Amino acid sequence: QPETVVMPWTEEREWHVPAAGRTDDRLTAAENFSRDALYRIFYLAGTYRTSVAKDRPLDHVLKGKVMALMFYEASTRTSCSFDSAMQRLGGRVLHFNESTSSVKKGETLEDSVRTMAGYSDVIVLRHPSPTAAGRAAEVSPRPVINAGSGTGEHPTQALLDVFTIREEIGTVNGLTITMVGDLKNGRTVHSLARLLTLYKVHLKYVCPPGLEMPQEVVDFVAAQAVKQTHCTSLEEALPDSDVIYMTRVQRERFADTADYERCAGRLVLTPQLMTLAGPRTVVLHPLPRVDEVSTELDGDPRAAYFRQAEYGMYVRMALLTTVLGRA
Amino acid sequence: QPETVVMPWTEEREWHVPAAGRTDDRLTAAENFSRDALYRIFYLAGTYRTSVAKDRPLDHVLKGKVMALMFYEASTRTSCSFDSAMQRLGGRVLHFNESTSSVKKGETLEDSVRTMAGYSDVIVLRHPSPTAAGRAAEVSPRPVINAGSGTGEHPTQALLDVFTIREEIGTVNGLTITMVGDLKNGRTVHSLARLLTLYKVHLKYVCPPGLEMPQEVVDFVAAQAVKQTHCTSLEEALPDSDVIYMTRVQRERFADTADYERCAGRLVLTPQLMTLAGPRTVVLHPLPRVDEVSTELDGDPRAAYFRQAEYGMYVRMALLTTVLGRA
Amino acid sequence: QPETVVMPWTEEREWHVPAAGRTDDRLTAAENFSRDALYRIFYLAGTYRTSVAKDRPLDHVLKGKVMALMFYEASTRTSCSFDSAMQRLGGRVLHFNESTSSVKKGETLEDSVRTMAGYSDVIVLRHPSPTAAGRAAEVSPRPVINAGSGTGEHPTQALLDVFTIREEIGTVNGLTITMVGDLKNGRTVHSLARLLTLYKVHLKYVCPPGLEMPQEVVDFVAAQAVKQTHCTSLEEALPDSDVIYMTRVQRERFADTADYERCAGRLVLTPQLMTLAGPRTVVLHPLPRVDEVSTELDGDPRAAYFRQAEYGMYVRMALLTTVLGRA
Repeated sequence: QPETVVMPWTEEREWHVPAAGRTDDRLTAAENFSRDALYRIFYLAGTYRTSVAKDRPLDHVLKGKVMALMFYEASTRTSCSFDSAMQRLGGRVLHFNESTSSVKKGETLEDSVRTMAGYSDVIVLRHPSPTAAGRAAEVSPRPVINAGSGTGEHPTQALLDVFTIREEIGTVNGLTITMVGDLKNGRTVHSLARLLTLYKVHLKYVCPPGLEMPQEVVDFVAAQAVKQTHCTSLEEALPDSDVIYMTRVQRERFADTADYERCAGRLVLTPQLMTLAGPRTVVLHPLPRVDEVSTELDGDPRAAYFRQAEYGMYVRMALLTTVLGRA
Repeated sequence: QPETVVMPWTEEREWHVPAAGRTDDRLTAAENFSRDALYRIFYLAGTYRTSVAKDRPLDHVLKGKVMALMFYEASTRTSCSFDSAMQRLGGRVLHFNESTSSVKKGETLEDSVRTMAGYSDVIVLRHPSPTAAGRAAEVSPRPVINAGSGTGEHPTQALLDVFTIREEIGTVNGLTITMVGDLKNGRTVHSLARLLTLYKVHLKYVCPPGLEMPQEVVDFVAAQAVKQTHCTSLEEALPDSDVIYMTRVQRERFADTADYERCAGRLVLTPQLMTLAGPRTVVLHPLPRVDEVSTELDGDPRAAYFRQAEYGMYVRMALLTTVLGRA
Repeated sequence: QPETVVMPWTEEREWHVPAAGRTDDRLTAAENFSRDALYRIFYLAGTYRTSVAKDRPLDHVLKGKVMALMFYEASTRTSCSFDSAMQRLGGRVLHFNESTSSVKKGETLEDSVRTMAGYSDVIVLRHPSPTAAGRAAEVSPRPVINAGSGTGEHPTQALLDVFTIREEIGTVNGLTITMVGDLKNGRTVHSLARLLTLYKVHLKYVCPPGLEMPQEVVDFVAAQAVKQTHCTSLEEALPDSDVIYMTRVQRERFADTADYERCAGRLVLTPQLMTLAGPRTVVLHPLPRVDEVSTELDGDPRAAYFRQAEYGMYVRMALLTTVLGRA
């Protein structure tokens, strides 16, 4: 029974895994998170989706297990979907709230993690520092799942994004996936682009000038022989996109408001624009959205972003089951 | 199996109900929330009260179900009693906290609701806007229970108030029910007055000048042929009241402190005043109280306000069971 | 089946106990919390420790029971360990959060407690006022566990401290226990010193000038014929200490920073200093620590403070089981 610690997902695509059964020990091994491991998680997530839809009992799966949610940053979606995932499987949840915690008395992340590890069986950590998940895993006797670490990585978001594509379209290979918005600062598109190199895909980028995908991500993707194309407009990209992955362009990144209006206004997905896309195209968004996807699109069956949020719960159910050795 | 969505309780006393089993669809039908439906809920609430008192297991009832508590306003009693209600029936609870949520990133109520609906089976919403519950039910694929919407309605409070009268006195018909305090701004008395028109009652009002029951409520009650009397003092109303429903007079409503002192001081229920009331009279209060009910009264068996809070849990247990189709 | 209400632990070592089975009544009796009662709790805590380590199911123990966590002060460790304790035994937890509660509307502690008692089977209260737990127990129809009351007492911390000594060393009798740091203001050392008078121990104190153990505690300990010695340095105390109980020296207690640096700097436990201590010595700390115990010591098997935090969960599991009449 494998016990996976989902760690900061590095350039080398390492997912650290402690030796099976050694829950009382430090991190002892590391291996690549392979496409096989991905498949197992997606398969399990798919069965959970079916079970929840059919109201089948699942609360025996993680009965007796306790998950500590340690969130040092606000995050409704990630926090609530882990919470629901654990509870739907019969597990229990502890909330460590930075604002009501000993952090105010000067306690270090490491000490907080070691303490919470004494009360729980797995730790889910969200933290503004890119190094936090690594530091936590270093001292924790329990598995640590990285639920987003600052401008670093957000590995479970990338997993749920790929799972969504699989569930909506049936496959990932052969698809053209277009990422839209602020590709420079959006950590979800960085993690997703890297994870998609496990598949045969064509990546297209649409972004305002100055907000291009970072060179290190572009180089990483290129090294895996994945085709990348920069498009200058949604109009150009939409016709042959299978997946449109929208992200928010943050106003505060622009010194000049006029610049922002000009850029962001051109990257708003509307029903009119969607007439350019095919009938089986799917629109994703990590949410929350502001106005880059028109609410008029919500009724369009191709708008998959709310289903995407729900799929995140199934992926986290599968991850927790795997990490807690009950897969 | 009926799936009831408890909605803003309108002038027309509509309680929207989606077609049974259509949990993946929008709100599709509406019907009056009838006295029969009330009776079924009260009957179920009564059996739950007995089961809890006798320590009988109830955790099979909502096993596997998840409730999302979405509170955009502080409310201990409503939040904790829904929370306890769900957990006593074996269900699980997700807390959506506005202050730690994507609301700060500009997410709309509608988007938050659709997201949480993906993680849960029923949504309980408290919001400062009178239109919030309606807007939420419009987009949610899951039932939405209105747990208070601004100055609008608070339907589950009205239900628990009537249930309390039933449990304490044995019947509602034939009673004289006196509402005391700020009748203009108190939404609980508005909802309660409307709900009581389903019964044969006599309503009395005692309030400071300028804080009278709104004309629209008075007109609605009159249209149902329910007798209403305005009394000028507690002394006048107490002798033939079966139920005394106390509410808070809020200091901030008065421009002149002296006016407040004069008004509020006369509407404080004390043991001395209660000598005017009969031995089977019951005193209710939605809580929290400030000083309009003397703590010296707490030991009086006629003081039912803490039992009233507890009854709220049983009513919410019954509502959740009904809404989730397990009644 | 005894139902223990853990109350403010007074000079007289009273632990109030309501009559068994009378959960619907006020506090009706009080008795000394005897060494026998301690033994029963420690024995039960020990069996829970084993059960959790061996992944044995425990969720039948408090199935159907609800605990209200009422925290008027931040406290990660105490709150999360009670939370995990209740959930590991199959019970459910309600969170009463002062900042999102009716406390802001002027509700008294007594009213909040009576309300929460209507939703739950046991109340766990943390409050800045030394009299809060007593006032709560006075009005609550349910058992109240004192989880720390201001500068007053913190009885469950003292219990877990003694349990830790038992588990780590095997016995408490005959040991030399050295308390280090701010002995004047640290409530944990006050409660612990008093509780240790139930055993044959030798207490040593090491503290900066002006932060000595209060005379009333010294007098109480002396009256139980327990030997007390004041040491002037860690170097002097370490060689024959079986337990070193470290606490934080708070910077804000010193008018002069230079004074603080001089005092606190001498009371920092380092690997170098620990070479003076025996191989079976254990180092405890109520946590959170700032820098009075070097993190370099964390890998030393004698550093027991993180295990101590975990033991707290087992002690609270035993307390809850006892208080809820399921021991």
